[in-house]
Amino acid sequence: AVISNGTAVLGLGNIGPLAAKPVMEGKCMLFKTFAGLDAFDIEVAETDTEAFVRAVRAIAPTFGGINLEDIKAPECFEIEARLRQELDIPVMHDDQHGTAIITSAALLNGAKLAGKELDRMRVVVNGAGAAAIACARLFLSLGIRRENLVLCDSRGVVTTYRDDLNPAKRELATSRRISTLTEAVAGADVFLGVSKADTLTPEMLRSMASNPIVMALANPDPEIAYEKAVVSRPDIIFATGRSDYPNQVNNVLGFPYIFRGALDVRATEINDAMKLAATRAIAALAQQPVPAAVLQAYRLQRLEFGRSYLIPKPLDPRLLATVAPAVARAAMESGVARRPVTDWEAYAEELRNRVEPTK
Amino acid sequence: AVISNGTAVLGLGNIGPLAAKPVMEGKCMLFKTFAGLDAFDIEVAETDTEAFVRAVRAIAPTFGGINLEDIKAPECFEIEARLRQELDIPVMHDDQHGTAIITSAALLNGAKLAGKELDRMRVVVNGAGAAAIACARLFLSLGIRRENLVLCDSRGVVTTYRDDLNPAKRELATSRRISTLTEAVAGADVFLGVSKADTLTPEMLRSMASNPIVMALANPDPEIAYEKAVVSRPDIIFATGRSDYPNQVNNVLGFPYIFRGALDVRATEINDAMKLAATRAIAALAQQPVPAAVLQAYRLQRLEFGRSYLIPKPLDPRLLATVAPAVARAAMESGVARRPVTDWEAYAEELRNRVEPTK
Repeated sequence: AVISNGTAVLGLGNIGPLAAKPVMEGKCMLFKTFAGLDAFDIEVAETDTEAFVRAVRAIAPTFGGINLEDIKAPECFEIEARLRQELDIPVMHDDQHGTAIITSAALLNGAKLAGKELDRMRVVVNGAGAAAIACARLFLSLGIRRENLVLCDSRGVVTTYRDDLNPAKRELATSRRISTLTEAVAGADVFLGVSKADTLTPEMLRSMASNPIVMALANPDPEIAYEKAVVSRPDIIFATGRSDYPNQVNNVLGFPYIFRGALDVRATEINDAMKLAATRAIAALAQQPVPAAVLQAYRLQRLEFGRSYLIPKPLDPRLLATVAPAVARAAMESGVARRPVTDWEAYAEELRNRVEPTK
Repeated sequence: AVISNGTAVLGLGNIGPLAAKPVMEGKCMLFKTFAGLDAFDIEVAETDTEAFVRAVRAIAPTFGGINLEDIKAPECFEIEARLRQELDIPVMHDDQHGTAIITSAALLNGAKLAGKELDRMRVVVNGAGAAAIACARLFLSLGIRRENLVLCDSRGVVTTYRDDLNPAKRELATSRRISTLTEAVAGADVFLGVSKADTLTPEMLRSMASNPIVMALANPDPEIAYEKAVVSRPDIIFATGRSDYPNQVNNVLGFPYIFRGALDVRATEINDAMKLAATRAIAALAQQPVPAAVLQAYRLQRLEFGRSYLIPKPLDPRLLATVAPAVARAAMESGVARRPVTDWEAYAEELRNRVEPTK
């Protein structure tokens, strides 16, 4: 099920459960279209964490897995943690982990293109909501060093000297003696924006290290406009949340396949090993030659791994048979699979048939 | 949504929410097949009335209407009453009202065939669970007199002299000085069995009034077997819950169309006027000539209103455009319709097209 209380709907904010319904229905259609999963939406008229958890727990026998959606921070952290702990089915808050997985795939490939090692890269995350926190955490899991990561919120740099931090921000606070986004960005290798339009100026961009990786995910207007960014820094490696520019960071690259893999092996949860496996599988796919079907879908003459093709295209039919088995295998290796896959080639073939029924 | 906690699944009992899931999924398919309604099932892991109501209320923004299903008595009464009161969408416990509506349609037509007036008929209801209570209540709404109705449970006649009655039974208790089912049945015009196999003996059947109406709904083995019943009383008007004998009392004659009508006018509830309208529409349809499509579906040469055809056949395609408009009209007339139908012919045509797409 896709479950929301409508407290943080993308671009719309706290619109409540009923108004959120069409968004959740759309998400269900994506599950069906991309992974053949029959999902349905549940809108919960509870904003209190305890009441929300109680309601979802009560109806959990209905579902094989739960995709939490558009629930505001900081409640989303505890809601997800509680449900993961109390239920024995996969539970994932996609706004957190889906986004983290796709941006991490872009980070891996961006680092490769920039010729940089993760454990030496300096990262600035602008925004400190649910998605930002989850991205920062997954970046650390991938090898970014804690002391090289700086989180900024609307008040500036999240430092250990501030006394207005929630637990999630405190966990990621820096002890560096800086306070503004401008200071944080100077010399940084990576800028991840999960904030709002035009917060990254050309001057700030020019202060970044060589081959800067910039993921400007504010929608519809990113932290810095595409045209402005590429003119300011010809060596930029740039991704946005928009479909009309290269490198769209779109959660649909992840969640349908992550749930497909988790459900196919009857995983009891979606753990960190499975998230990392999804990240690496998505990143690896972008390095493969692009089949004609993808070029046709996007009306492109050619597409190859590079600054303009950092992560796979959302309509790439290879994603299902690539990401789902990686997640399934990670579930087995981490001991959470209740029905292991034994014939991997048959499984991949079955998945390919789902997206290419006329093959 | 079709919502259950699995505490009273037909023929299976208290099997819990997860085991009840296939039954609820099947019910959803019936909504889709017979009325084009997209329903999905919700299994609730709560048996406590308050906790169940709270969980369903929390997720109510998800749904246009709620069909409660297979919840045990007496909790089902308060659960339905609370949800009807607190929500502004149609809520109906089908085990109660669906069954009541179909048996009431059979009662109306049985009385017509027997040439009897409802306000003079004596009725025995054997069983005192959710369905039995609801049937008895609707019989009273139709014109059966309170003093002519006797309820029996596993301990015998439910009388005002007993001190072991729950509120629902107390409401229907008789002050007659009788205590056994045998005494209750003697001279009765109607026997409704919502109990268990073989509780009505041939002797008891022979003690009933002329042209007795017997609805023996225990499944798979009714309160008296078909062969035994028709041999014992050639003048019997007999219905069962089975599909392999005439006059199958099947809730599918009602719930898909009742919800279709209620939802089409955006009714805020399913009230008594709507239930009575459904009852009368179902009864009236059985008095109409039977179209060839129905005969073909059941491989019958002929079928006409009478002892062997008291209520419509479940696969009768006319039900949708007959029952749904009757319910919609009753919703409008009773002031609970938020989006009234203005063109009844267009509405009926639209409904006919749903079941005869190739016409």
